[in-house]
Amino acid sequence: MQLDDELRALDAHYRSMPPVAAMDIAIAAREGDTLTLRAPLALNVNDKACAFGGSLVSLMTLAGWGLVTLRCHQLGIDADVFVADSEIRYLAPLYSDLQATAALAGSGWAPFDDALRSRGRARVRIAATVPLPDGGVATTLRAGYAAIARG
Amino acid sequence: MQLDDELRALDAHYRSMPPVAAMDIAIAAREGDTLTLRAPLALNVNDKACAFGGSLVSLMTLAGWGLVTLRCHQLGIDADVFVADSEIRYLAPLYSDLQATAALAGSGWAPFDDALRSRGRARVRIAATVPLPDGGVATTLRAGYAAIARG
Repeated sequence: MQLDDELRALDAHYRSMPPVAAMDIAIAAREGDTLTLRAPLALNVNDKACAFGGSLVSLMTLAGWGLVTLRCHQLGIDADVFVADSEIRYLAPLYSDLQATAALAGSGWAPFDDALRSRGRARVRIAATVPLPDGGVATTLRAGYAAIARG
Repeated sequence: MQLDDELRALDAHYRSMPPVAAMDIAIAAREGDTLTLRAPLALNVNDKACAFGGSLVSLMTLAGWGLVTLRCHQLGIDADVFVADSEIRYLAPLYSDLQATAALAGSGWAPFDDALRSRGRARVRIAATVPLPDGGVATTLRAGYAAIARG
């Protein structure tokens, strides 16, 4: 995929973190209101020749973090974004390259947008999924993120 | 700490996974019925100069995985151990090296031991914590693990 300037900056931001660079995590796609990241299995493999749980969680958590960060950009608000909590389900082993797609878990961004604009801080829940090549699901995450406007 | 043969083997097992080696995760201590892992901040730092969430989750999840694996060894049962689900709370940023201690979340190993011995498979819940240097808590995890006897 050809990344636009905004996504190239986010991709570089991800890779500036040593553990993220070690997993070779990269942006795969931004489609509608979702963000998809990818990482090669070879660098993220466990002792059972499938994807390492920690890498799957990292990929899903970063996809959600990126989605919230992009939303702050859209609002024109310079904000720090933090993950506050998450729940993970490991449903099936993944024996191929990793891909995680994050999307809003609730019904819309309006409460997040309003809170960030009016109070300079806001929370939102994001859902992320790692698909299996055959159409099933390897892992799911639901996580809460906080955004706090800078300055 | 001087590791005994069993812990040296577990340490080598951890490091055989490329993403775990990249985080430089190592066994720090086995005390009573707990297992503590450590990792240096430099390889596990995020964009805010504190510990990367994915590394914290990896460290806590692997500490729990190791604790369950050691329990299987104690029972003399050769088993594969999997993480099934987890809940994470990110409570405070950590600006120093990472350390995670895992312990049994329930009241005892008896149900796990009995199920693994009689049915060849068992589940158990583990709690793990990453402390702050000042005595507070950076992150917590509660996770379910499954053990399945081989062969």
